[in-house]
Order: sequence, then structure tokens, then C-alpha cells
Amino acid sequence: MAFRNGSTNTTINHLNGASTIPKNGSTTTTINHLNGASTIPKNGNNITTTLLKNGSPHEFGCIKPGWFSEFSELWPGEAFSLKIEKLLFQGKSDYQDVMLFESATYGKVLTLDGAIQHTENGGFLHIEMIVHLPLGSIPSPKKVLIIGGGIGFTLFEVLRYPTIEKIDIVEIDDVVVDVSRKFFPYLAAGFDDPRVTLVLGDGAAFVKAAQAGYYDAIIVDSSDPIGPAKDLFERPFFEAVAKALRPGGVVCTQAESIWLHMHIIKQIIANCRQVFKGSVNYAWTTVPTYPTGVIGYMLCSTEGPQVDFRNPVNPIDKKPSHIKSKGPLKFYNADIHKAAFILPSFARNLMEKEIFSIV
Amino acid sequence: MAFRNGSTNTTINHLNGASTIPKNGSTTTTINHLNGASTIPKNGNNITTTLLKNGSPHEFGCIKPGWFSEFSELWPGEAFSLKIEKLLFQGKSDYQDVMLFESATYGKVLTLDGAIQHTENGGFLHIEMIVHLPLGSIPSPKKVLIIGGGIGFTLFEVLRYPTIEKIDIVEIDDVVVDVSRKFFPYLAAGFDDPRVTLVLGDGAAFVKAAQAGYYDAIIVDSSDPIGPAKDLFERPFFEAVAKALRPGGVVCTQAESIWLHMHIIKQIIANCRQVFKGSVNYAWTTVPTYPTGVIGYMLCSTEGPQVDFRNPVNPIDKKPSHIKSKGPLKFYNADIHKAAFILPSFARNLMEKEIFSIV
Repeated sequence: MAFRNGSTNTTINHLNGASTIPKNGSTTTTINHLNGASTIPKNGNNITTTLLKNGSPHEFGCIKPGWFSEFSELWPGEAFSLKIEKLLFQGKSDYQDVMLFESATYGKVLTLDGAIQHTENGGFLHIEMIVHLPLGSIPSPKKVLIIGGGIGFTLFEVLRYPTIEKIDIVEIDDVVVDVSRKFFPYLAAGFDDPRVTLVLGDGAAFVKAAQAGYYDAIIVDSSDPIGPAKDLFERPFFEAVAKALRPGGVVCTQAESIWLHMHIIKQIIANCRQVFKGSVNYAWTTVPTYPTGVIGYMLCSTEGPQVDFRNPVNPIDKKPSHIKSKGPLKFYNADIHKAAFILPSFARNLMEKEIFSIV
Repeated sequence: MAFRNGSTNTTINHLNGASTIPKNGSTTTTINHLNGASTIPKNGNNITTTLLKNGSPHEFGCIKPGWFSEFSELWPGEAFSLKIEKLLFQGKSDYQDVMLFESATYGKVLTLDGAIQHTENGGFLHIEMIVHLPLGSIPSPKKVLIIGGGIGFTLFEVLRYPTIEKIDIVEIDDVVVDVSRKFFPYLAAGFDDPRVTLVLGDGAAFVKAAQAGYYDAIIVDSSDPIGPAKDLFERPFFEAVAKALRPGGVVCTQAESIWLHMHIIKQIIANCRQVFKGSVNYAWTTVPTYPTGVIGYMLCSTEGPQVDFRNPVNPIDKKPSHIKSKGPLKFYNADIHKAAFILPSFARNLMEKEIFSIV
């Protein structure tokens, strides 16, 4: 595999060689706070940061000293735990608890309100899918809006497409962006691309105010529907998304686990069915560090040029020019794209009443 | 969905309606030991059973009181945990630690040597795949050998095929069978089918002694390659399997997680490539309660009538006669079958040097 910086001897603790994200300048030193690393104007947040003298893990929901455990009312009765090597950042933003730690086997791990959002060694699974499922389904994506994804990884993947002219990215929490600039500089580098505009603010409000018919694609890389992302799962948001997309434009939203949240998924499908007059589809993939090991996506298109999400017209793995600067894709390929829409029997049966597709 | 016993109001804690296994007679009462529930002749084991007066969970590796946690040298730095409602059985057989508990959200959970093997609400994922991937790939399976799978679920699924004439099932640990008879009687019922012969003994030795060319299919539903299942991952075992299969016969073996154990998988592929002269393929699926949320399968065929595993000739979801007695399939369908062979880019790249297929 080719690395951007030519290094081929990165130490990999986990995920068997899949973790090939180049690390040019990222450090794992323990810091006490964010040291003003960000140059992004703050939007008035009062950031409460817990100072940690030794970076030693302590009371933040772990069920064993030195381990992080993920409890939530969204997945009662089960918990995934990771061994912490070093706590790198812990703070409370205006919106949520933000924590970053060096894990024993997944590299750096970002959690928001106690839920794992990104792991350095495994984050590519979710991000490659949430980006390349929609952008692989339209011929030449030019204008893209990303909601959430303040760590910059979504942006990193969108920038693989040579046709990109304009990306707006709206992240509600500037602390997440600050953490990325400090600890994931190879991802945050995308914020400085001249085609990119970073907006620190509310994604739902941004979409509502957006120019009608402007975007080719909108990617909603949100957290779960409790906390700051709640609005992103409701019908007024989808209506604003549909309005902001061009005819035949596409949206991809994070849409939970079929094993845990079919009631949420069915509601999302019902909303999307009413709003999007092109096609409405559900796809899914595996992510080891997400609850029940899977995550789903709603993929919808507006009325206009037909979009057949199940047969990608623009699969990025077939156009390798991006590999030199960004490294190879680790998960996504055109066959994985097609397979993502194939559902287990029980899910297909439960969804089929809700699925509407004119494709 | 149709239930065998007509009940449609089973309480489901998890997996969103996927858990439709009929429960005719299964109980959740706490017992102190197995009470001689099994009528299967014991093979001389001295079973050491820990008596639990109140069924209260205590020292068995949990990292929080009242929770079970799964630690292993096979997946260092991470652990999956389940909340225990009631401990139902805990014992030490000649081969391994055996534990069964009622979980808060996955129904009854069986662990062997501290690793989750089966959950009542989610077990169907793995079992439907390990059975229907091989049996869906040959026209009319008649003679099947199951190695491991002493809980009886593999057998339950094999018995969906109306063409079945003979099933041998070889389980090394009689305690697992006893636990199943007591707590999963709807699965253990298969042991009493006149076409079924249960052998309590060593699977590798049984295969070595089997009649050459006898079986249409061999299913190896083993635990991980540490402990009693170690031999089932090595070349002499695969050679014996190939000999016991008819020309164009098929084998499906549990083959670990692509995220954790690519080094083991590559070794298995290399062994199979030398042994099986028909075709050698790797498939995978998601299982929420297995480490990293996925499990893989080696699917191989012997020289003879060609087997194209990727295009099932006998998908059981298209032949619904079995549903009346066994309930609907919850995960498997012909499309899921085909999709199981589609691999992420990194895994495909790592495996392609090892994959040998004449199909």
C-alpha cells in the first residue's frame, strides 16, 4: 500500500493493516488543554476544560480503572470498552462532553457525550461509506455540504473527488474542530483548502437558510438523535435539505443501527418518503466500535435526473488519482457500495412498507 | 412474522423484532446445576459445577458488578459487556468454563472460556450464515456433518432442508449439550430427530476416521483457535475434511474476524488452498456480540462438480416449506448470501495473494 509520505513501517495495533492513514505531524503527547491551537474564530462558546495533570483516566464513566466504557440509554444492557493508554483531552463545550484518548489498540479515540465518534485505526469504515455512497452515485460532484464531521475526516474523503469546486462544512461544536487541529492535523488540513468554507454553527439552521437548489450532495455525519444532533433526524430538517439540493441531488445521513433502532429508522424512512421524490434507500455497514457493530445510512435523491444508488456511476476506487495525496481507500470499493444496500430478511420485511423508490 | 407456536406477542428486548425464535417450554428459572437433564450418555467427563445459591453474578471476569465482560488475548484492549439479569448456570467441564446467563437485552447468553458463543436474540446471525452459505451452494444436501455446535442451533438450521437424510453432529463437550437440553429445548429437540446422530467426542478424530467421500457438506462451528478448537484450524484437519467429502462436496468453517485476525485467516486460506482443489472462498457477516462485530467463514469445495459459492443454487429462503415448523429466516436470504463474499478493499488486497479459486 502506498502512503502519502512514503512511510511503510507505521506501527499498527489493530485492524490488520487497514490503518494506513498517513500521520504527518500528529503527536500523542499529553496536553492539559487545547493551547489555542485553533485559528478558527470562536463563536462565543465558554469552554470548560478539565485540566489533567498526568493525563490519567479517572471518573468519566469507565467501569474499570484505565478503561473507557460506552453506556447509553440508546443501547441499554450492553457496553463496549476500550483500554486507555493516555488521556489526551477532556473538556465540556457549550454542547457536549468532548474526550480524546490514546487507546491501546485503536489509536486515538474521540468521544462526544460518552459515545465513540471516531477511532484513528477504524474511523475509515464509517467515513468512507458516508462519503462515497452518495458521491459515487452522481456523475461529477461539484458543490457539497457537510453537516457535522468537525473532525475533518468527512472532508478528507470528499476531497478525493477531482470535480469538487465548493465544500461548505457546518460543525456546531468548535471544540471538536480544535481537537482535530491539534491531534489529527492530516484530517484538519482540509479546512485550509481554498474550496472549503468552515462554518461553526447549527447545521439545521444553515440548511434552512441555504440557496435553493445549490448543492449536488449533502452529507449529514451526525451523532445520535439525543443531544445536539436531535434536529437532524426530524422532518423540517429533511425538507430544508431537499430544498437546498439541485434536481437529482443526493443526501446521505447517518441512520443508526438496524439491531437497535428500527423504530428510529422507520420514522426516518417515513419522513424521507414524504420529502424526497427521487428515491429513498437504506444502506448499512460494519463498524467495530459502534454499538452492535453496524451503522446505517439514508440515501435519498430529489426529483430530477434519476439516481440509482445501488449501481454507482462514479465509484472513486476506479479513479485512483487521489491515492497519491490521500493514500488508498481501505474499505470502500464499487462492490462494497452495491452490497451495502442488501438487507437482512427481518430488516427488509420491516422496512419494505416504508421504502419508497421510483428507481 | 409467523411463529411456530402461533404466539405473536413475545417480549423482545433487543434486535428489533428479529428475535422470533419460538420458545416452547424454555424457562428462565435459576438452577443450581444441570439436574441430570441430559439423557445423552456421558463420555467420562468429571464435571465440576459451581453451585450458585441465588444465581447472583459474582467473580467470573466482570468489570462491573452485575455485568459480564469479555476479555481475551485474542482481542486485547477491547471488551464487550452485557448486563446480567440472572446467572443460570456456571460450570467447568473437562474442556472449558461454561456459563449461561439471562442478559438484560439479548436473552440467554452462553459463554465458553469467557467468550460469547450464543445469544438467544442474536444467535441466528452467525448460525444462519454458517449453515446456509454452504448448503445453499449445493443442489440437494443429504448427508451433513456438523463439528461443534453442541447447543443444537446449527442442527436446527440444517434441518430446514427437506432433502436431508443423515446428520452426524460431533460435540466435544457434553456440558454444552446438557445446557442446551435444559435451557434451549427448542434447539436441542433436533438431537432427537431420527436422522441425527450425536457423537460426544473429538471432531478432528471423528473426521479422520470417517468414510471417504461420504458427506455432501461439513460445517465446522468451532470456538476460537485457543482451547479445545485449536486442531480445527490446522492443515491435518482440513485434509481429513477433504477426504470425508464427496467430489464437489463443501465445507464451511468459522474463520475469525478480518479486523482482528488477518494473520490467522491468511494461514487458513493458505492451508485450504493446498488442500481443496475445487474452490476456496472467504465470506463474512456481522454479529453484534462477537469481537469487532463481525465473523468470517472459509467456504471450500473438493474437486468434482463445480460449486459457485457466490451464486447459490439452493437458497433456502426461496423454498418456504420449512417455515411452518421452524419459523422464518431472520437474517439469511439469497442476496445476503451473495453479498457475504464481497470484501473491503484492504482485506481483498491482503487476501488476494492467498485466494485460489477455479470457479
